[in-house]
Amino acid sequence: MGFWKTWFSTSEANSTTRTTPSEEYAVETVGNSDLNGVGEVHQQETRIVFSTERDLDLYELEELCDSVGWSRRPLRKVKKAIEHSFLVASMWQVRGNKRRLIGFARATSDHAFNATIWDVVVHPDFQAKGLGKALMKYVLKKLRSEEISNVTLFADPHVLDFYRGLGFMSDPEGIKGMFWYPH
Amino acid sequence: MGFWKTWFSTSEANSTTRTTPSEEYAVETVGNSDLNGVGEVHQQETRIVFSTERDLDLYELEELCDSVGWSRRPLRKVKKAIEHSFLVASMWQVRGNKRRLIGFARATSDHAFNATIWDVVVHPDFQAKGLGKALMKYVLKKLRSEEISNVTLFADPHVLDFYRGLGFMSDPEGIKGMFWYPH
Repeated sequence: MGFWKTWFSTSEANSTTRTTPSEEYAVETVGNSDLNGVGEVHQQETRIVFSTERDLDLYELEELCDSVGWSRRPLRKVKKAIEHSFLVASMWQVRGNKRRLIGFARATSDHAFNATIWDVVVHPDFQAKGLGKALMKYVLKKLRSEEISNVTLFADPHVLDFYRGLGFMSDPEGIKGMFWYPH
Repeated sequence: MGFWKTWFSTSEANSTTRTTPSEEYAVETVGNSDLNGVGEVHQQETRIVFSTERDLDLYELEELCDSVGWSRRPLRKVKKAIEHSFLVASMWQVRGNKRRLIGFARATSDHAFNATIWDVVVHPDFQAKGLGKALMKYVLKKLRSEEISNVTLFADPHVLDFYRGLGFMSDPEGIKGMFWYPH
């Protein structure tokens, strides 16, 4: 379907259009030989596809977050957070007409100057293959196309190098990330 | 007018209602004796009032940001950022029917879990009087009333202690604020 576009065939002109849920990109195309039910040899593609679609199955998302050991959050609040995020990015493994959610990230923003990326997750089965990097590049490309000049995030100690590899700087000019929790 | 409410007369029940532009609070009431045009002695109040009103005079806001030496930003983008902020808080000096913008802060949010505070500014004439603290407490109260569980910000080195005094922690559990700029 025309709904799917390969990343590399996307022109720069397209990449500056408004983020819409129907923009999807394939980064990888792997041909597999497979026998179908009637004994014919079929070419079945396995692709990794990125999307900004917001109409996610929240249970599938919860399963993804479970897979990396995150504590569960009320689905009502997750739904609200997704609705009010500036950008919602998901990564899918697509085989024929089946797709599996394997990565997720979202960003809050004032739509003008600042965006903050939250909830970056890649399923453990798909880690250490460059897919987290591909997901983050997709997110940054989308934010950049919206003329956001300042992209921020809060990184756990074990992922600092991952984000440094993408060009993120920690504490530039001594600016510190600070947290306040209700008490 | 009923439009103005004193902070201390506001019940806890009120403080959990939805943020609306018409909620305003006075923290300070100073009575001044003054002679009016017809020679009568009048009591003229000077009050500090907080508001979540979004319909700000952008030139007045620019003047406030100029006063602390911030570099100018396109008003079109400032307008957009204000429209898409979750919370816009302003602080006013009110004398009779005149008011002057003396402080500002805003927050982006997913309306569920996270909020990030940006652009905190207090006019130099009103600094070192506890008004920055009062403004931040107003912001935190508003965010808390919306059940936001994680309030974040990025602090310049010289204001770290100011935010620590309000209960903010830098780099809790080694979590680092990171920035990415387009290149």
